Amino acid sequence: MNGADSVTGVVMKAMSRTPDPRLREIMESLVRHLHAFVREVRPGAEEFEQGLDFIRRLGEACGPEKNEVILLSDLLGVSTLVVMLQKEQEGGGTDPALLGPFWRAQSPRCAPGDSIARDARGGEPLAVAGRVVDPGGKPLAGVLVDVWQASPVGLYENQDPDQPDRNLRGLFETDAQGRFHFRTVRPAGYPVPTDGPCGELLRAQDRHPWRPAHIHFMLSKEGWRTLVTQVFDNADGAIESDVVFGVTPALAGRFERGADGALRLDYEFVMRPGTRRIPRPPLP
Amino acid sequence: MNGADSVTGVVMKAMSRTPDPRLREIMESLVRHLHAFVREVRPGAEEFEQGLDFIRRLGEACGPEKNEVILLSDLLGVSTLVVMLQKEQEGGGTDPALLGPFWRAQSPRCAPGDSIARDARGGEPLAVAGRVVDPGGKPLAGVLVDVWQASPVGLYENQDPDQPDRNLRGLFETDAQGRFHFRTVRPAGYPVPTDGPCGELLRAQDRHPWRPAHIHFMLSKEGWRTLVTQVFDNADGAIESDVVFGVTPALAGRFERGADGALRLDYEFVMRPGTRRIPRPPLP
Repeated sequence: MNGADSVTGVVMKAMSRTPDPRLREIMESLVRHLHAFVREVRPGAEEFEQGLDFIRRLGEACGPEKNEVILLSDLLGVSTLVVMLQKEQEGGGTDPALLGPFWRAQSPRCAPGDSIARDARGGEPLAVAGRVVDPGGKPLAGVLVDVWQASPVGLYENQDPDQPDRNLRGLFETDAQGRFHFRTVRPAGYPVPTDGPCGELLRAQDRHPWRPAHIHFMLSKEGWRTLVTQVFDNADGAIESDVVFGVTPALAGRFERGADGALRLDYEFVMRPGTRRIPRPPLP
Repeated sequence: MNGADSVTGVVMKAMSRTPDPRLREIMESLVRHLHAFVREVRPGAEEFEQGLDFIRRLGEACGPEKNEVILLSDLLGVSTLVVMLQKEQEGGGTDPALLGPFWRAQSPRCAPGDSIARDARGGEPLAVAGRVVDPGGKPLAGVLVDVWQASPVGLYENQDPDQPDRNLRGLFETDAQGRFHFRTVRPAGYPVPTDGPCGELLRAQDRHPWRPAHIHFMLSKEGWRTLVTQVFDNADGAIESDVVFGVTPALAGRFERGADGALRLDYEFVMRPGTRRIPRPPLP
């Protein structure tokens, strides 16, 4: 080691025997960009200690209710960038969006038209009707549609002791016309958790913690690329400033009132051929 | 949000109200470099999950015995780059080196010539004689010299139930000629902890985990910039391949045998005027 100029080269050399070429590529790129960041901001000793301590506290703040590492990645736009690059690389179809920290495996299997609102405590009734097609517009039958959403007070069931287990979660299947439909209640927007290091960052950046109201969808079928996305309520005040940068124009859904006064969301999903893959559940 | 190209700009805008200009500068630079990294490697969904999970596990693996976040920063050369850039910016003097994860506040105060080897279980005796001067070569009196080192089997006392508390740690003060001296035993090199995520990374990169043998020094005096450094045993086989990139030519010390056969290390430290600052202890 001979001064700051030599450090990056010496580290590259130390990592050069990495047997897996993809790991080598990733780590070389990471070290190059991390070192460029450090050269640009030249952290003082105290700043550097604070930064490393922030990362330690992220990991320590993770638990059964939240994952602050995923949250930080979301708050810095990194997660959204990753899914958008994947979409660019793989061509058209419905915009993907973040899985988010609240998906749970094994949603309750439902029949067409079932309600996923499993408690009777109100909220505005909402009817959701979806259609799933291939890039040519041909209906896709037998697609599993996993849906989950926050309650009218903005909480997922696993955050809220007042909701029954698996409330506002359900697993549907498309029919021969590619259609599925279910009943629910209108979701509310909610703030991301602000009681940990990520909350400190948001406050220091003078950012609000709100996500606009949305419903999560995960669509999967053998031979088709799993589509993870969210459809937003474009009447929500935070639709232009989602704290985790998940809203694209195509994902701003219209929650419309029919002639009978009832609220309804219609949405068409486009899946692409590819590999079915179910993500790792973010919570234990 | 309108596709991957727009993400970085949207995030910058969201962070643009940050009241503290330094925090704003750091976060903007971090987001730019992080996004450039992501655009370059285009992580797949599974790779991205693995990466975030690795960071979570770093924080979870921290505890009273080790700090894997600091360790990862060390293994990627980031910590060394930070101290070298600080030195470049601030001019000459002895090369700094990493504080490392084993410094403890409140070393036992010692008299000149005391031995810091507080157990009688052997090891090769070593006499250390230091001199502390200013950039013009003028001796500095009243400098507090905090020393700590691993044992002849390569363990710090707080890692090793067989060593007495505070073994191989001591706090000395320079005399009117800027001199200090103490007795100890020759330290051994040691591997960084390999039982956590950082160990997995080293194995995946086919890197050895060894640090060459060294003695840590922290020199402090009001009105002088605190010098944190390490003096290495240049006879150690790992002197050219320190896993945390801490060795500079100037820090490769010569452990020499005198006419009497006894081992001796002489070293001259150069401090610069500046602010005395004692770091945050890395262990609780």
